[in-house]
Amino acid sequence: MRTRKHKNMSLLKQAALGGIASDLTIKNVNLFNVITGEIYPVEVDVCDGFIVRVREEGQQQKIASKSYYDGQGNYLVPGFIDTHVHVESTMMIPENLSRAILPWGTTTICTDPHEIGNVMGVEGIKFMLENAKNSKLRQYVLAPSCVPAVVGLEEAGAAFTSKEVAELLDMDDVVGIAEVMDYVNVIHDEKRMHDIVEEGIKRNMFLQGHCPHLMDEGLAAYLVGGPNTCHESATAKEVKQKIRNGMHINLRSSSLGDGSKQIAEGLKGNEYYDFVSICTDDVHAKDLLTVGHINHVIEKYIEAGLDGKALYKMATLNAAREYGFNDLGAIAPGYIADMQIVKALDGSCPVAVFVEGQLVGENGKYVALDKLEESFDFPNTVNIPQLNSADDFKLYVPEGYSKDTIMVNVMVSSPMFKGLRHVEPMELPVKNGAVDISGDESLIFVCNANRYGTGNKTIAVYKDLGLHEGALASTIAHDSHNMNIVYKRAEDGYLCAKKLKECSGGICIVKDGKANLIELPIAGLMSQKPCAEISKQIEEVQKILATIADSDVHVLSTAVMSLTVIPGIVISDLGLVDGVTQSFVSVFTQ
Amino acid sequence: MRTRKHKNMSLLKQAALGGIASDLTIKNVNLFNVITGEIYPVEVDVCDGFIVRVREEGQQQKIASKSYYDGQGNYLVPGFIDTHVHVESTMMIPENLSRAILPWGTTTICTDPHEIGNVMGVEGIKFMLENAKNSKLRQYVLAPSCVPAVVGLEEAGAAFTSKEVAELLDMDDVVGIAEVMDYVNVIHDEKRMHDIVEEGIKRNMFLQGHCPHLMDEGLAAYLVGGPNTCHESATAKEVKQKIRNGMHINLRSSSLGDGSKQIAEGLKGNEYYDFVSICTDDVHAKDLLTVGHINHVIEKYIEAGLDGKALYKMATLNAAREYGFNDLGAIAPGYIADMQIVKALDGSCPVAVFVEGQLVGENGKYVALDKLEESFDFPNTVNIPQLNSADDFKLYVPEGYSKDTIMVNVMVSSPMFKGLRHVEPMELPVKNGAVDISGDESLIFVCNANRYGTGNKTIAVYKDLGLHEGALASTIAHDSHNMNIVYKRAEDGYLCAKKLKECSGGICIVKDGKANLIELPIAGLMSQKPCAEISKQIEEVQKILATIADSDVHVLSTAVMSLTVIPGIVISDLGLVDGVTQSFVSVFTQ
Repeated sequence: MRTRKHKNMSLLKQAALGGIASDLTIKNVNLFNVITGEIYPVEVDVCDGFIVRVREEGQQQKIASKSYYDGQGNYLVPGFIDTHVHVESTMMIPENLSRAILPWGTTTICTDPHEIGNVMGVEGIKFMLENAKNSKLRQYVLAPSCVPAVVGLEEAGAAFTSKEVAELLDMDDVVGIAEVMDYVNVIHDEKRMHDIVEEGIKRNMFLQGHCPHLMDEGLAAYLVGGPNTCHESATAKEVKQKIRNGMHINLRSSSLGDGSKQIAEGLKGNEYYDFVSICTDDVHAKDLLTVGHINHVIEKYIEAGLDGKALYKMATLNAAREYGFNDLGAIAPGYIADMQIVKALDGSCPVAVFVEGQLVGENGKYVALDKLEESFDFPNTVNIPQLNSADDFKLYVPEGYSKDTIMVNVMVSSPMFKGLRHVEPMELPVKNGAVDISGDESLIFVCNANRYGTGNKTIAVYKDLGLHEGALASTIAHDSHNMNIVYKRAEDGYLCAKKLKECSGGICIVKDGKANLIELPIAGLMSQKPCAEISKQIEEVQKILATIADSDVHVLSTAVMSLTVIPGIVISDLGLVDGVTQSFVSVFTQ
Repeated sequence: MRTRKHKNMSLLKQAALGGIASDLTIKNVNLFNVITGEIYPVEVDVCDGFIVRVREEGQQQKIASKSYYDGQGNYLVPGFIDTHVHVESTMMIPENLSRAILPWGTTTICTDPHEIGNVMGVEGIKFMLENAKNSKLRQYVLAPSCVPAVVGLEEAGAAFTSKEVAELLDMDDVVGIAEVMDYVNVIHDEKRMHDIVEEGIKRNMFLQGHCPHLMDEGLAAYLVGGPNTCHESATAKEVKQKIRNGMHINLRSSSLGDGSKQIAEGLKGNEYYDFVSICTDDVHAKDLLTVGHINHVIEKYIEAGLDGKALYKMATLNAAREYGFNDLGAIAPGYIADMQIVKALDGSCPVAVFVEGQLVGENGKYVALDKLEESFDFPNTVNIPQLNSADDFKLYVPEGYSKDTIMVNVMVSSPMFKGLRHVEPMELPVKNGAVDISGDESLIFVCNANRYGTGNKTIAVYKDLGLHEGALASTIAHDSHNMNIVYKRAEDGYLCAKKLKECSGGICIVKDGKANLIELPIAGLMSQKPCAEISKQIEEVQKILATIADSDVHVLSTAVMSLTVIPGIVISDLGLVDGVTQSFVSVFTQ
């Protein structure tokens, strides 16, 4: 597909022929040509946002351009294309993300808005599309395929069938279907997933995959089913098998983890890398402030042994071709003038970044002269009628159980929040009809409360979560984004819920009966604040958290406690869920 | 795009999982993986025409396949894709071409039916599409962009505007716009060409280029205008500039000529070849019998210094990606099972060729058990009311000229038919009101007669054409395919025309007052005969021609005498045409 549909062909041709002045000429640069692999000096003429000529030595302009940019002998390369990223993970809205990301050389992102999709459905994704229009960053959207992640085990703010996916696919700037995570149902041709994927197939659109650990016959069945990319390989062996079987590998290194060593190892021995591109998946504001974006993934993979030039090609031309964009990802006549000037092909911050020929970044600073939109009203998505008092945070013993002690399925694991959990029965005292954990320092309550008005909630006892007093709560809880509250005392849990409801969502730490907030009023996921402010606020609240919790507990630790697709037991608004058997586990036991 | 739309996803997934038997397993082969560049042993399972698994060592089948093919340790590679070919040049109809071409390993061709388009318009192209459906060969069609080649300088059987092109683009199996030869009008944004290209752009379809000798600002303007492939580069310098500027280079070596050395030279120093594919353009029946098709182009480019493995990738994966086919050109789950087994990656004839998992070729023989369609009626496209007697072949002197001698613009050139011509005034005798060339052995008449009923014709005097007696005529005359007749005596010229009209077109040699025919009743371009018969017939008629002409005169020599786009003077039904100035040159002068 051509990514910018309306171009004044006549004007561009005239500029190419030298009949009219170009808007900009970038001179004194060495082009790294991602099509041929060569490096040679050029001057590049831009008109109306498009590259109209790439002149080599001896090819003079007939008529002077309106402006010039001196590249001072540095390298000129296309802007980066991120093949898979969740905007919501940055806690920024699309127009602010644009400002944070462009100075690092990324000029196009292909986003999966499945976080806001889970909260607000199609309307949330429309907001992302609309807000992205205020930005210089080229933001394409993929229609989320798995809202909610697992039907029946949790309730989100929306549930997509092929109907919603079809509605999204027909919108401007929606270019395919986002990471089809439910590979089990793809493989077994379950009807809902079949129908969703079919909407993409019948439109000849891009189908993004997601299949950690999948190999052999399962991988083959998944590929036959349509999705043919993956950014989730865990082992070198898996990467090797996937690319050999025609899967596009999206090299990833995110704020949540870095698999560069295994993935690079899996590509060893390959002669061609056409099916390799680069993505960030989840990046936090602080990383965007300090180490960057796609450029940082490149740094990681250079460390892991891949070639710098090859990585720049993967992040540009290969990414564009993976999506079928044929006027992005290279520097040649007819291509959109998204370019960056870099001192070396090593992932360092660009000297200059251009979008459609406009200078938007210089030495890490955003320099485009556009204004942030005034703050706008956004509906409060936190609807928790079931949490009206501290009593609602107590784990009451159901009728028919003993009034003195009760056997509870306690969620145990490694001391890390991130570790997979299983349940172990434990006899706990009962006080005033509710489970009493005050006698065991290692225990804590976790409540997952539906925040879309259903009134459902689950309260369970966890062991060794690392929070020693107060409470930690958040409206970010993948993928349904119900509210998770971790608390010793019911009063602290209730304070979190009350404050998060008042401010339309976010993260709340209670210490000494006082609430400390990171307000995320946009769907309970994002702030309207810019990158630096969000990053600072997270740092401040994290400092308070550190005084009441172990060092490995983070303000985002509750965000991964409800992921119903991971191979352990997690908490959803409908109960404790075993991700392996995809069934419920009771909170109480015999 | 996915090339075969309707697949039974559920069935394929079951076969991938090993739940049902595959139709075929190819075993004992070494896969050359065009995605990674590796070579390793595999077994490939095929179900319902699709590859469902590519099993490496240690990956066993759960259930036996319905049939097996033993590759005897040879290489397995995808079927070739020809990125640009004119079926009509083979003189075979699509279903016969299929039988000739498949045993050489080519399983997909992207055709430009502009020859039949010039003769019969949209209806002719519909015939090609319909007839191709009887074949195993995957035949995609591109909508001809330049019918006729140059408006106003010749009249063909049809004239396409954007309306006809749009009608074609909306047909099944039409995948883009064919070689946009009229680069001058693209560059200068002339309305008709602009509108034609725009039909492709607005459908996001493939735009094939064609721009010999085009470089610098003209090349940039052409690329900005849309077409971004070329199979017509004449020099190494041109190739280098084109690919650096984002043009896909289609390596070609056709029956009409071999530019492999210059083109290979132009790619020297490149590290990546993603934008290089392979095409044949024009291949004659005899070459298809003896040296092959895409495989022969590969042989030529290996001789010219390119790497064999790289060439197999160009002819498969690169070609598919150039067109945006994402289930062709590789051997991986979900891809169409078009494959070949070869003894070496050197362009030699495959041991076996499969289309959708069906064995169609073995050791150069077509082995599929389908029958040729019974011969069918086809309209006679030869309509020449202006050629009713020998007198119609005389070059009469117009009123107002002397009755004794006349100054004629004689078409002169090198002794080769192929050489570019210019005119030189020469005083010739007049006899009974017509130019008399009987006194000069070196002179001969050429008549180009419109064969679509307009009644127009041009008769001119040529020098040193190499035909010494009799006549040579053909209804193949690029691109309008009017009738060209070369003759010493008017009677011989008339006999040619009469015979060609009777048999609905073809090639006719008159020797000693006797006509020798190659009948091409399908639009005056193609026969219904198979490759071997056509080849034999050509050889026989050529032998007769050799007795009355120089050795460089071929039965197809008249086919290139009316190409109004070449930089010399040619003959059309409307007059003598200067290809450089795109204007007429008079037959008589002062």
